[in-house]
Amino acid sequence: MKTILVIGIGVGDPDQLTLQAVQALRRADVFFVLDKGREKADLRGLREEILRRHAGERPYRIAEAPSPPRDGAPADYRACVDALNEAKQAVFRTLIEGLAEGETGAFLVWGDPMLYDSTLRNLDALKAAGLAFTHEVIPGITAIQALAAAHRIPLNRIAEAVTVTTGRLLADGFPPGIASVVVLLDGEDTYRRFVGQDVEIFWGAYLGTARQILVAGRIDDVAEEIHRRRHAARAANGWIMDTYLLRRLPS
Amino acid sequence: MKTILVIGIGVGDPDQLTLQAVQALRRADVFFVLDKGREKADLRGLREEILRRHAGERPYRIAEAPSPPRDGAPADYRACVDALNEAKQAVFRTLIEGLAEGETGAFLVWGDPMLYDSTLRNLDALKAAGLAFTHEVIPGITAIQALAAAHRIPLNRIAEAVTVTTGRLLADGFPPGIASVVVLLDGEDTYRRFVGQDVEIFWGAYLGTARQILVAGRIDDVAEEIHRRRHAARAANGWIMDTYLLRRLPS
Repeated sequence: MKTILVIGIGVGDPDQLTLQAVQALRRADVFFVLDKGREKADLRGLREEILRRHAGERPYRIAEAPSPPRDGAPADYRACVDALNEAKQAVFRTLIEGLAEGETGAFLVWGDPMLYDSTLRNLDALKAAGLAFTHEVIPGITAIQALAAAHRIPLNRIAEAVTVTTGRLLADGFPPGIASVVVLLDGEDTYRRFVGQDVEIFWGAYLGTARQILVAGRIDDVAEEIHRRRHAARAANGWIMDTYLLRRLPS
Repeated sequence: MKTILVIGIGVGDPDQLTLQAVQALRRADVFFVLDKGREKADLRGLREEILRRHAGERPYRIAEAPSPPRDGAPADYRACVDALNEAKQAVFRTLIEGLAEGETGAFLVWGDPMLYDSTLRNLDALKAAGLAFTHEVIPGITAIQALAAAHRIPLNRIAEAVTVTTGRLLADGFPPGIASVVVLLDGEDTYRRFVGQDVEIFWGAYLGTARQILVAGRIDDVAEEIHRRRHAARAANGWIMDTYLLRRLPS
């Protein structure tokens, strides 16, 4: 049998790996790397550092494949995601077929595989299509946890719910009845639409790395600062990963 | 200065500690333990194992204090929580005042301090009241992540939001517009109210431990099994920690 490990590796601080993830890294014969191109060179560097520190002394291989390109602003988002996942499944199939019987391959996933990541869905689709392998999931620290820890804040207000959502969905406003919203995957500075409302924001970029930036305050006071620093940092570094918590203030 | 570390220690598998948490455990001179009494003896055992494995060879102290009792079914939930937190702050103050200048104390928090935990709020209240200390937060793997990893599932459907909520709030139904809901702190088997609706459930108890139980399926098919196993396990072990994901099936 072939074994696939899907390992959450956190978002930037190699010390935020779990002991279980370190043990999993040591079990892998092959690391699958989907290369997203030049702009993510920093992220590749972090992944390489993790392997250097934790993959151990025994020999391992790296199987690199190009990550299928994604349309930045598709007309039909769902159709685009479906097409992207089909292309990814073809790449995954080639990588898994390249394993010898009895070998273990590993996908390293930013954050935790449970959140806004397609790896588990694509593996399920390949299993349903008859590809033979077993797989295990190792959780990792998400950007949400790195954000809350850096700001030293609880995510939820006492006895209340929290919604985790995307910039795209937040453009429609807070979900009804929800006062605390964590936003991932927002390339459009959607937080700015809440200026003039009684909302506070806790924002962070490059969480857990030497470049970490944190800004917190009432949205009216800090929205422009976040916008300015976000775009300056993206221009300087060629990429940005950021996330934030928005919270309605008690009126 | 006194330093307080608030360390997320996961929910049951000592290997789900992060490397950062292990380093933090080695920095602490004193571990603060709020004892919740006999029924949580298993949890105390796990905490002791974590210290044995990771606190290191140097001497450390354990400062134990009784955890203020909580009213199981209060008439006024918020007032009850406020009273509980005031009592906790008095306990925290005594513990922190027991540190010598320059020493480091650590609170070990189940899961991650960001979620349904009062430690950070109580420390903020003590700081606002003039108690002098610095504090750092170290994230930990939550029950949500342990659940998703054990079931090997993503939490969100593609491009959709997820709400993290409590059994108490779920009694009012799914939040409007939200198809995926993770439920923590449900002592009342609230999932059973969705029998007859097109909903699936991924349930787990004692996640990451040798006692782990997993059940998944359509709520109509598995609600009674979960109810039965949940109550049998609680009776046998004297306590239970469980969590679940509910998801509306596409109609």
